[in-house]
Amino acid sequence: MSMDDVLRKLRPTQELQGRLSEAVQELEDRTRSSIERTGLPLQTMLVGSVAKSTYVGEPDIDLFVLFPTDTERSDLEKFGLQIGEEVLHGEVHYAEHPYTHGKFHGFEVDLVPCYRILDTTHLRSAVDRTPFHTRYVLEKLTDEKRDQVRLLKQFMKGIGVYGAEARVQGFSGYLTELLIIRYGDLASLICSAKGWRPGIIMDAEGGLKGGGEPPLTFADPVDQKRNVASALSLDRLSLFIHACQEYSVAPDDRFFFPRERPVWEIDEIERCLQTRGTSPLVVVLERPDLVDDNLYPQVQRSMYGLRKMLESYDFNVLDQCYAVGKDVRMAFELEHEPLPKGKLHQGPPAWTVNAREFVEKWRDRGLSQPFLCEGRWQVYVEREFRGAVELLLSKGKEASLGNNFRELDGIRCYSGKKAYLAGNRPVLTKMLDKRENWRV
Amino acid sequence: MSMDDVLRKLRPTQELQGRLSEAVQELEDRTRSSIERTGLPLQTMLVGSVAKSTYVGEPDIDLFVLFPTDTERSDLEKFGLQIGEEVLHGEVHYAEHPYTHGKFHGFEVDLVPCYRILDTTHLRSAVDRTPFHTRYVLEKLTDEKRDQVRLLKQFMKGIGVYGAEARVQGFSGYLTELLIIRYGDLASLICSAKGWRPGIIMDAEGGLKGGGEPPLTFADPVDQKRNVASALSLDRLSLFIHACQEYSVAPDDRFFFPRERPVWEIDEIERCLQTRGTSPLVVVLERPDLVDDNLYPQVQRSMYGLRKMLESYDFNVLDQCYAVGKDVRMAFELEHEPLPKGKLHQGPPAWTVNAREFVEKWRDRGLSQPFLCEGRWQVYVEREFRGAVELLLSKGKEASLGNNFRELDGIRCYSGKKAYLAGNRPVLTKMLDKRENWRV
Repeated sequence: MSMDDVLRKLRPTQELQGRLSEAVQELEDRTRSSIERTGLPLQTMLVGSVAKSTYVGEPDIDLFVLFPTDTERSDLEKFGLQIGEEVLHGEVHYAEHPYTHGKFHGFEVDLVPCYRILDTTHLRSAVDRTPFHTRYVLEKLTDEKRDQVRLLKQFMKGIGVYGAEARVQGFSGYLTELLIIRYGDLASLICSAKGWRPGIIMDAEGGLKGGGEPPLTFADPVDQKRNVASALSLDRLSLFIHACQEYSVAPDDRFFFPRERPVWEIDEIERCLQTRGTSPLVVVLERPDLVDDNLYPQVQRSMYGLRKMLESYDFNVLDQCYAVGKDVRMAFELEHEPLPKGKLHQGPPAWTVNAREFVEKWRDRGLSQPFLCEGRWQVYVEREFRGAVELLLSKGKEASLGNNFRELDGIRCYSGKKAYLAGNRPVLTKMLDKRENWRV
Repeated sequence: MSMDDVLRKLRPTQELQGRLSEAVQELEDRTRSSIERTGLPLQTMLVGSVAKSTYVGEPDIDLFVLFPTDTERSDLEKFGLQIGEEVLHGEVHYAEHPYTHGKFHGFEVDLVPCYRILDTTHLRSAVDRTPFHTRYVLEKLTDEKRDQVRLLKQFMKGIGVYGAEARVQGFSGYLTELLIIRYGDLASLICSAKGWRPGIIMDAEGGLKGGGEPPLTFADPVDQKRNVASALSLDRLSLFIHACQEYSVAPDDRFFFPRERPVWEIDEIERCLQTRGTSPLVVVLERPDLVDDNLYPQVQRSMYGLRKMLESYDFNVLDQCYAVGKDVRMAFELEHEPLPKGKLHQGPPAWTVNAREFVEKWRDRGLSQPFLCEGRWQVYVEREFRGAVELLLSKGKEASLGNNFRELDGIRCYSGKKAYLAGNRPVLTKMLDKRENWRV
């Protein structure tokens, strides 16, 4: 399939464009009516990928309601939500301030209040920048470049790095547009990105230098102090660099349209781990009622907190992974489990005041007598936790956990052969199936 | 048993003193006759513990032959050995220069040539200091202090820190004498040593301060630049400090006269390790034909070299020990053996020039596909050596080894249950029986 063929699949159909412009028209009309009822001097502005016509697939509609800068913040929130409720009958979401999310003519819609500022030095909240982004991109993008943005978005979706949300920690839509403005087309971007390293600083005008904070700094053309790539993780950036290297050598549709990744059967999972001689550990937790952008960072934090606890109790954690579904599952690959009963316990040097206390404490009570090694006391003692499951059930709450995981509600832990359960297949597959999306 | 009772057992008997003075007399006579035959202006001097009357048990006799300082080194060696041969019919040993060792009237004798220097700033070799040591100690020691030296020597023998030779790395006889000169008696020394820390600098005149090189600096009163405690290891110093602490709290004869340590039965050894869940590894090597002071450092170096190699191949070594008998045996306690088949192999970061090479090398060839973790490539690969025995038999010679162990002559290795052999009982007992001598 050529790039042109890919593009043909990505461009919106006439039918979609018709439905979309009808929906936008009616949404704006209704919003304006609602504004009139408030008696306030508010304006609407269509922003985001619909305004810029850079969407791929079914778009979300982002409609902003612009308030004068002398509006009290509480009034902005009150009237913003009032208008949202009248227009969408949707639900309230929270970012820096609340906004309304709903469905309209089958499209997902965000109706967001913001301040109509003169320039970005007068920012009152992060969303105030969005109208400037929209104007900047509309001014810079031609139709050809719009096509290239669509290609880039699909490439990034395909390889798994598209989206600034916490679940992905990848490239935002705005960043893809800026990259095309910067590089002209996907081919040129890929050619450059093959050689990127963490710490690159770039801007939309063609600047490119090293020495910045990893992973990547892309100066926002409407607000130079802001890094458009601040949500991007090192792993996503590395994957993008790698994909660009691979695509250059062997371009393939599967970068854009990867096959679905099958969930492994239990015996496949078991065989994989048994071949390595390692042990699985799966922790199942209740899924807290949080939006994804709050949930995912907490899941990650909790997973790394549990990893750290496992390591502090001598479990060598080779790999880890999580999957969010009806519940939250974290999988760990352990080098040895259970651990040997005895462990070497380090004591104080022989010449410190604590030395005698240590020796008295462990004399005839350890798995050896205390002994000196390089001037320091040591003793073999019985390990507190030989099994990872006992450890986490007993001490897990003391790990560094996300706020809504503090109590480890609903915790169940499975290690060794007990982890080979149907419900653990997705998370274990995610951990074990290391193929890139384009090689599935 | 009181200190007096201990002392009564340590003081030489009339019978021994008689035999000894007779032997010394005759040895000196014979040496002088031999000197006369050379026609050189040489003198004899009795040095060491016999001269100072500070020996415990059967003493070695040290008789020095003093050469004028204008003697050529080659002549000193030639005539020194000639006299030694005539007097002792012994064998040649090598320190800084050769000397003769033999038996005389049942006593071990060293007949050592040295230069008769005016003061220690004119040293030609390390042994030239010895006459000064003897004179210094004779001048400072009273009969009461001689008794205290005997007590201290026996205390140090008992706890296992007596002897500056490489096998022990403990306190030399001269150092024990200086310590008594410094502290007056054993009780005062013990009381001070309880609070010692590594890095203490002291001298025979009463000086004591910290901040020196660990373990201990004791300035030689006849040559301030020299550290009398240079052979002392941190482990021996720590053990001495610890013993002094323990003795203060609960004095006991067993510090002076410990019971014999029984060699454990195989089933006792096996039970100990099985309780901990750890694995033994024993390496048996041919004993090279070397004097102890050359052999022991090489054994130690080789043992630590093998330990380092084991660790670099992921074996966690908890403890190690060696025993020198008809052969040389090194025992290691391993946390896990054999290791799991798979291991995580670290690759380069995604953005380096080697990244593609790594990915191509391991694609479809490892125990997983290569994958990115924090921007770095990783892959599960098959471990080269799962067993410690295979590793050492195949790669052991590449370890950092003592010169005479370079070829690992006669190497045999036993791990796991195979290590439970009668011949391994001494070295495994030494590793596992951590009781202090006075608690056996």
